[in-house]
Amino acid sequence: MLVSTQLKDAFLSVRQQTMRLCEPLQPEDYVVQPIADVSPPKWHLGHTTWFFETFVLPHSPGYRVFSPEYNYLFNSYYESVGARVVRTDRGNMTRPAVKDIYAYRAYVDEAIMAFLESDTSDTKEVRNLIELGLQHEQQHQELLVTDMQYILGNNPLFPVYAPKSNQATIPFAVAKENYVDIKSGLYSIGYDGTGFCFDNERGVHQVYLHPFRVSDRLVTNGEYLEFMEDGGYTLFVHWLQEGWEWVKQGAIRSPLYWHKINDQWCHYTLHGLEKITPAAPVTHVSFYEAEAFARWKGKRLLTEFEWEAACMQLNAAKPLTGNFVEANHLHPRPCPQGANQFFGDAWEWTNSAYLPYPYYQKAEGALGEYNGKFMINQMVLRGGSCATPQSHIRATYRNFFHPDKRWQFTGIRLAQYS
Amino acid sequence: MLVSTQLKDAFLSVRQQTMRLCEPLQPEDYVVQPIADVSPPKWHLGHTTWFFETFVLPHSPGYRVFSPEYNYLFNSYYESVGARVVRTDRGNMTRPAVKDIYAYRAYVDEAIMAFLESDTSDTKEVRNLIELGLQHEQQHQELLVTDMQYILGNNPLFPVYAPKSNQATIPFAVAKENYVDIKSGLYSIGYDGTGFCFDNERGVHQVYLHPFRVSDRLVTNGEYLEFMEDGGYTLFVHWLQEGWEWVKQGAIRSPLYWHKINDQWCHYTLHGLEKITPAAPVTHVSFYEAEAFARWKGKRLLTEFEWEAACMQLNAAKPLTGNFVEANHLHPRPCPQGANQFFGDAWEWTNSAYLPYPYYQKAEGALGEYNGKFMINQMVLRGGSCATPQSHIRATYRNFFHPDKRWQFTGIRLAQYS
Amino acid sequence: MLVSTQLKDAFLSVRQQTMRLCEPLQPEDYVVQPIADVSPPKWHLGHTTWFFETFVLPHSPGYRVFSPEYNYLFNSYYESVGARVVRTDRGNMTRPAVKDIYAYRAYVDEAIMAFLESDTSDTKEVRNLIELGLQHEQQHQELLVTDMQYILGNNPLFPVYAPKSNQATIPFAVAKENYVDIKSGLYSIGYDGTGFCFDNERGVHQVYLHPFRVSDRLVTNGEYLEFMEDGGYTLFVHWLQEGWEWVKQGAIRSPLYWHKINDQWCHYTLHGLEKITPAAPVTHVSFYEAEAFARWKGKRLLTEFEWEAACMQLNAAKPLTGNFVEANHLHPRPCPQGANQFFGDAWEWTNSAYLPYPYYQKAEGALGEYNGKFMINQMVLRGGSCATPQSHIRATYRNFFHPDKRWQFTGIRLAQYS
Amino acid sequence: MLVSTQLKDAFLSVRQQTMRLCEPLQPEDYVVQPIADVSPPKWHLGHTTWFFETFVLPHSPGYRVFSPEYNYLFNSYYESVGARVVRTDRGNMTRPAVKDIYAYRAYVDEAIMAFLESDTSDTKEVRNLIELGLQHEQQHQELLVTDMQYILGNNPLFPVYAPKSNQATIPFAVAKENYVDIKSGLYSIGYDGTGFCFDNERGVHQVYLHPFRVSDRLVTNGEYLEFMEDGGYTLFVHWLQEGWEWVKQGAIRSPLYWHKINDQWCHYTLHGLEKITPAAPVTHVSFYEAEAFARWKGKRLLTEFEWEAACMQLNAAKPLTGNFVEANHLHPRPCPQGANQFFGDAWEWTNSAYLPYPYYQKAEGALGEYNGKFMINQMVLRGGSCATPQSHIRATYRNFFHPDKRWQFTGIRLAQYS
Repeated sequence: MLVSTQLKDAFLSVRQQTMRLCEPLQPEDYVVQPIADVSPPKWHLGHTTWFFETFVLPHSPGYRVFSPEYNYLFNSYYESVGARVVRTDRGNMTRPAVKDIYAYRAYVDEAIMAFLESDTSDTKEVRNLIELGLQHEQQHQELLVTDMQYILGNNPLFPVYAPKSNQATIPFAVAKENYVDIKSGLYSIGYDGTGFCFDNERGVHQVYLHPFRVSDRLVTNGEYLEFMEDGGYTLFVHWLQEGWEWVKQGAIRSPLYWHKINDQWCHYTLHGLEKITPAAPVTHVSFYEAEAFARWKGKRLLTEFEWEAACMQLNAAKPLTGNFVEANHLHPRPCPQGANQFFGDAWEWTNSAYLPYPYYQKAEGALGEYNGKFMINQMVLRGGSCATPQSHIRATYRNFFHPDKRWQFTGIRLAQYS
Repeated sequence: MLVSTQLKDAFLSVRQQTMRLCEPLQPEDYVVQPIADVSPPKWHLGHTTWFFETFVLPHSPGYRVFSPEYNYLFNSYYESVGARVVRTDRGNMTRPAVKDIYAYRAYVDEAIMAFLESDTSDTKEVRNLIELGLQHEQQHQELLVTDMQYILGNNPLFPVYAPKSNQATIPFAVAKENYVDIKSGLYSIGYDGTGFCFDNERGVHQVYLHPFRVSDRLVTNGEYLEFMEDGGYTLFVHWLQEGWEWVKQGAIRSPLYWHKINDQWCHYTLHGLEKITPAAPVTHVSFYEAEAFARWKGKRLLTEFEWEAACMQLNAAKPLTGNFVEANHLHPRPCPQGANQFFGDAWEWTNSAYLPYPYYQKAEGALGEYNGKFMINQMVLRGGSCATPQSHIRATYRNFFHPDKRWQFTGIRLAQYS
Repeated sequence: MLVSTQLKDAFLSVRQQTMRLCEPLQPEDYVVQPIADVSPPKWHLGHTTWFFETFVLPHSPGYRVFSPEYNYLFNSYYESVGARVVRTDRGNMTRPAVKDIYAYRAYVDEAIMAFLESDTSDTKEVRNLIELGLQHEQQHQELLVTDMQYILGNNPLFPVYAPKSNQATIPFAVAKENYVDIKSGLYSIGYDGTGFCFDNERGVHQVYLHPFRVSDRLVTNGEYLEFMEDGGYTLFVHWLQEGWEWVKQGAIRSPLYWHKINDQWCHYTLHGLEKITPAAPVTHVSFYEAEAFARWKGKRLLTEFEWEAACMQLNAAKPLTGNFVEANHLHPRPCPQGANQFFGDAWEWTNSAYLPYPYYQKAEGALGEYNGKFMINQMVLRGGSCATPQSHIRATYRNFFHPDKRWQFTGIRLAQYS
Repeated sequence: MLVSTQLKDAFLSVRQQTMRLCEPLQPEDYVVQPIADVSPPKWHLGHTTWFFETFVLPHSPGYRVFSPEYNYLFNSYYESVGARVVRTDRGNMTRPAVKDIYAYRAYVDEAIMAFLESDTSDTKEVRNLIELGLQHEQQHQELLVTDMQYILGNNPLFPVYAPKSNQATIPFAVAKENYVDIKSGLYSIGYDGTGFCFDNERGVHQVYLHPFRVSDRLVTNGEYLEFMEDGGYTLFVHWLQEGWEWVKQGAIRSPLYWHKINDQWCHYTLHGLEKITPAAPVTHVSFYEAEAFARWKGKRLLTEFEWEAACMQLNAAKPLTGNFVEANHLHPRPCPQGANQFFGDAWEWTNSAYLPYPYYQKAEGALGEYNGKFMINQMVLRGGSCATPQSHIRATYRNFFHPDKRWQFTGIRLAQYS
């Protein structure tokens, strides 16, 4: 748990980072919801603020709610906290305007900072709630980035979100691929540290793993192109049945954001439309595509337990902290050169369904809705991506999405049995 | 046809009126499309400008297109003029930003004005195209108003578009209803004047009408409430089969924008949420509701031919010009006091399907798509509403919508056979 | 109105004809509902029987209902007569079995015949109801034929319903097409005879027609093929907007039941899969296709009023009775040679929407649901087809379907203004 | 692997059992497909026969295919074996008629028996394929029973499939519930016997289990009613998010087939409509309902690994063989009295997703489509039900369905951590 000064610093830093991420936006960009998965940036700004107002500020004596209607507008899914705008209607709410939401943020930030100055805030419960609010906001920072990419990337003008920095234009060299051996045995899975973790990481438990080998880098665009050129999307034999239906129904022929222009594969990135870099990790693939690619290659995906064991072993010298580099954080980075950057380029689909660990108990009340109720029909992703805040990356973190989703920075790591 | 000076004045006046209508909007309000029928205000601004750029400015030597991508973005439905954003995707296009579209408008306006100064513009074809462009823009002005009402009226904050003027708050007195006799005989239907009309009004032809009687005012909110309180929405016997399905599927219980708040019926208007005025004309009803109301009342709707004949007879003293009053133009106005204001309070559903008149020929090329291709599955509305530009109202004007639509200012006039 | 002996004869004849039409069926064929429009033959058998049980037999003292559940099962749409199986669920009702329904028919037939022997049945109301029941059953005979064609024609085995008779194989000669002049003037429209007609034909009224010319035969398969080969289905310029959407969404490329096999156009008929006969009338086209064809050809469709006037004039020598020929009744017949067979080969799409005639009043009670409640969103067809019982054809008959429907024997007659 | 005589006996026995199950059907019952999950009985008969014709008989020299079109009609999902009727269209195929399919069965049965008499059939591959065909047919026997229940149970006449035997009417006594301790440790999971198993059971591997306690009987109808009466279906707090959506969208209020009639809960069984027996195991619940019930009860579901370990331990005295009792096989049987009948009353939802075991390899070719391609979005069920053939039940058997499915005999077993 963070002590008070650290908490204030962390609070300001996280809250400001959210606004910094929005700087390149026009007011219009804040509003829309092109698909149900993608929330309007405006909504992210309001919702993360609502979280503090709803869960923290009731502990602050005398706090007056900014506007009673905002609970209805910015409650995401907490059924315990009353009625809410249905998710698919978020993109039709033009009011409150962006400036009103910034006013809301300022109002709540001020209230939180004042609260943190007072004695009443110095309880474990309040500190925990604020830390949860910051972790929550960091999750939304990642969604902000990926949602903005979707909003801009589906516009026929392909607007640039951020110009390319010099560092980002360093050419990729294809990294040689090595398979690393992981021994069989009982592994301890789950978070047993003293820092923050989500409830779904708790419940440290033993998992027996058979011996396996794991690639030390992600699959590249160039490798994925080979799959495409080998008819990967046209042969059902590579696919799970529901993956195959997804391919046919959506007429899927490439990762998300890829466009073939004058016989050259390009993709939309936050720097605009660019040629594919063959040596860079492929991203924006669904679980179905990741699984089909692995099958085509004669390999397989890791389970989330294998992933965690491999990550612990390979990153032992230096604890996994992610390699979130500000200057470069909006584009998949060069393939890693060593073990220290082993993970964190893209979220890696595992072949594990998102289910509770042994002894998992969801929290009481509205906060209990945070994770547990999603434990069905989704697959676990591990690692982190260029859009993940650095301090948010850890080896035990369990991300999860439905197997057809691909607007996150999702990639592929291969494995096989020894 | 308008002569050149008039044309310039008309051009500036219409173009400025469009922008005036948008003044109360926030940038965010310009973007969204809550249902397929409702286009983003931003899109209306761009599309009406695109119309001049596409159909008029190619006649202006040396004109350079503002941006080639705008054809794709702002082509509404003209299949002859190339690919276009699918209608239901309009609300996801955050770029070009509102300010870019205003720049586009200014650019095209300047080009048109310069063109009108030059000799090359002085042809019948050009003058016709500009006049068509202005009529087109006036149609979109009405849609702008009704679309903004929908966008704001479906926001839980119920924002005010325009504060109520003093004039608008004059209390309504319930007008006595009189039925006027119209004699049987052959009537000439269609536009035979020398001014502007749309192609669907042409083809003057004879229609034989049996004698009938027509109400001299629209059905009021108070009368409609009687229908509601008599179980109008719960008894299928009043309804057409597809109307009944529409009622059940949409759980329809009142006109659009009506809300029962603390046992009091209110409705959202452009002045915000207000109590229902019993003496005002009911608006925002579908054809299904209009037809069911008439059946419940033991009356019927007019055909469009009866409507035109009645309008001609009753407005003979003073040609129908509409009673568009600027100060009051965003709210149904008081019931008319005399024959001169007989029509124009709300669009009146007729029991005529939208089909071609005898000898109807659609125009060649893209402009031929203006009207003719919609002649199926829609019902004709006659009259005009408080959102219709005054100069756009005429007795032969044929408006048309699908029978379930009700986001326009649509009302009910009753009739019966003599 | 029919006198008693005639009524008994008519009753037996119509009821037996229904069963004769089902003779080629396997029990399995009676059950399914491949699309919502197509009812299971079993359901037609039950529903036509239910009609007599529900509307006639309550007048017969002491009649005991066959089975109370049958009202729920065989009520088609009469909302006044209680709950019913939703239309799209008809095809899942395997019980009552076919033999049970034949037992139901026998039970009700016996009850009706006994009732007709008694004095109590000798009232105008009863005779009217029986006649309505028989007309209703004849309508379902036509649907039985077209529904069976759909059920068998969508089976990959293309089963033969009826082998081809010798008469039916007489080769078609392409009939020369003549355009006949119809003068302008006031025409009397609607049924004014003393026989049976439906309520939607009543309300004889005057309609003024401008002069026009009408083809003396239907459009042929050969002519329709020219349209197809000229890219008719690929050029939106021929189509109404909603027709074009229908073409694209359904990937429509030919009339219903047409299959291109080894470069030869074939179609499924009730005789099985056959080569297209170029000289035969094209059938199984939607209103959209009929309208697009006419536009492509530089012609137009008739209104229903023009159709009725033309039919009256051309068939004056011999009243229109239809040319239903038993031996041949399951295939479009040769093009007519003379005026007497001017109409009745296929239902002819008109460019009139199905709306009430002046003075139209729907009947009281459940029978009032027969026609009036469908008067929206449908187009009128006139004439009759090879599947229409001969006695059911008359010049004033108003058939109606949605503009996308084409599982009936629907064809095209062209017209133009003089 | 079965030796030849056994194989012939097994073949005849399994094939006859399929037909015995169909004896109570009317021809009409064989045809329909009320929901996509439920195949027409006719289709099961054809498809199981097609399996032998397609995979076994090509090994029999000189075999002539019964009808080439049957591959298209009865191929269920094997994409490798050519085009097929789309699944949701199965219920519209009235031909081939039931009698044709019985002829097809007889033809193929004869060919298989003749083949088994010959030398050419005496290979491991052929014997394996026949055994797989029989196991496949047994799977379809269970589906036949559950599909027939759905077809008849959704008919408003609630037809009886099989009258109740005396044995079946023995009243249930509520069994006391005991929780049995299972120790922590490494367990061997998967099939390591010499008999038949499916590929998804292979790959024996070690799984570490934490200690837990498991109920010795299934949840009863009476216990489930308590959940219902406690508002189980109305409080989201018990539900997974997607389960809650499922409840709301489907207006779910009870298990499938339950009807409240005159304030008494009844359910449709293959004996017809009956009162609920409180002491009998609840069946026809979805995973969502099973999981919500367990959460409400303060317990949880087992993982499939825990289930297998518990089953092995508790059934050690007598290997699990299922307790399929012919006379009683169409109704959930009395709660088990001892360890020997510990499992097999109903399929038990586990909280494990259906995913590959370590080292899992799907078979080559079309047979490889049997299991592997379904390993996404489904949950594992263990045990077996009254509709499962006795010889088809084994402790390692992995059944799987989507979490919303409940037309199988699916039930609930509770567990908790020690």
